[in-house]
Amino acid sequence: MMTDAKINAGINANERIDDLCRDNLRLIQNTDVFCFGMDAVLLSTFAKAGKNQKVLDMGTGNGVIPILMQAKNPGSMYTGLEIQDISYDLAVRNVELNSLSDKVNIVKGDIKEASHILGGASFNVVTSNPPYMNENHGIVNPESAKAIARHELLCSLEDVVREASKCLKVKGHMYMVHRPSRLVDIFTSMKNNHLEPKRIRLVYPHIDKPANMVLIEAVKGGRSQLIVEEPLIVYNSDGSYTEELLKMYN
Amino acid sequence: MMTDAKINAGINANERIDDLCRDNLRLIQNTDVFCFGMDAVLLSTFAKAGKNQKVLDMGTGNGVIPILMQAKNPGSMYTGLEIQDISYDLAVRNVELNSLSDKVNIVKGDIKEASHILGGASFNVVTSNPPYMNENHGIVNPESAKAIARHELLCSLEDVVREASKCLKVKGHMYMVHRPSRLVDIFTSMKNNHLEPKRIRLVYPHIDKPANMVLIEAVKGGRSQLIVEEPLIVYNSDGSYTEELLKMYN
Repeated sequence: MMTDAKINAGINANERIDDLCRDNLRLIQNTDVFCFGMDAVLLSTFAKAGKNQKVLDMGTGNGVIPILMQAKNPGSMYTGLEIQDISYDLAVRNVELNSLSDKVNIVKGDIKEASHILGGASFNVVTSNPPYMNENHGIVNPESAKAIARHELLCSLEDVVREASKCLKVKGHMYMVHRPSRLVDIFTSMKNNHLEPKRIRLVYPHIDKPANMVLIEAVKGGRSQLIVEEPLIVYNSDGSYTEELLKMYN
Repeated sequence: MMTDAKINAGINANERIDDLCRDNLRLIQNTDVFCFGMDAVLLSTFAKAGKNQKVLDMGTGNGVIPILMQAKNPGSMYTGLEIQDISYDLAVRNVELNSLSDKVNIVKGDIKEASHILGGASFNVVTSNPPYMNENHGIVNPESAKAIARHELLCSLEDVVREASKCLKVKGHMYMVHRPSRLVDIFTSMKNNHLEPKRIRLVYPHIDKPANMVLIEAVKGGRSQLIVEEPLIVYNSDGSYTEELLKMYN
């Protein structure tokens, strides 16, 4: 049974609306699919786009990254590419819900064909929060929307990086959030595709624990010189969020 | 003029003896050459060697890394390779000064020929604190001992990694300290030489500043899976050393 609030917003029984705590933005999420997490919030803060710059978000899911980024980067224009019907539909409705049709365009399609669908060398910025896991053995249902969003079933890391490079103009910037365990593969793949890693930031859940996320900025055709920024610590020792994390959510 | 203490220890006017604050170890250093720094202390703590394992330190300078490591890794055996006369001489005297002739052997030779001089696949562990800087333009005296220790004049990063791999047995471990700005080059060079980066630790001078050192462990023929360990913070906000740093020095 739908609540009144759900009926008013035109959402379904397995959906919910979350307040994005930024410029009154809201987001319809489907709990059967893949709800956005901290990684999307961190990436949308780490990534930058200038006025009139064209940004492509590869594998946009419910559209959270373009929706958050447009609020922080005035005058930038977004395309979100998504292959899964259910997520594509959510992203389209989220753009409408936030009245962002003039800034964010959602396109249905496969990351592996991104440059074919959207045109080569046509973006200033590419963002991606791609599937993280490359060990796909033992997945109960490889066709489930959650499995597709989390595991490299429909596209590999190499596919994401190759298509990002193709879609970018020379000196364009790619921003990605991924797992530290894949950092060597990420650097290798970027180098092979003319993307030079220029800036990374390690995300440590606690100051005395290994990193569990990494934010990466690469430049197409850039010179070799990496900056490893100050550590991003998520939790204080008492379990509360650090000041920097709270600031990103507000 | 030599002081009495200098005469007693048999050291020269431009030399000094430092207390290594570990097992009563002492080290003669020559202020005209390259005195060991925090990087050597961090590497000798990060690197591990088992009983009866053979360890090669490539570009050992005054021998600080083998001398510190043998104190923490009982039963391990060391070879230090050094090309510069003045540093080789210091390393030999430091081994004598600390009565370590049965554990540490200093060899004069070129890193670029390490596997030729010492034999391929003959070590369990290779350590190196190699020259960091690959921008050699503007060096006043490219033959000075300090310039050779700091800049890639006599050997490149690629030389160090290639020879480390050749000198290591299969599944042997390489430990290196380097600059974060070169992390992409390091990973690329290691992958090209069958060394898989398995564990890194970023060293941040302050919690809110970019990393200025990185410690790397790679395994010859290892599987691709990297751990980024907890951040190593050097200074507290009041400028004093952090507890972890103090522990490494004592």
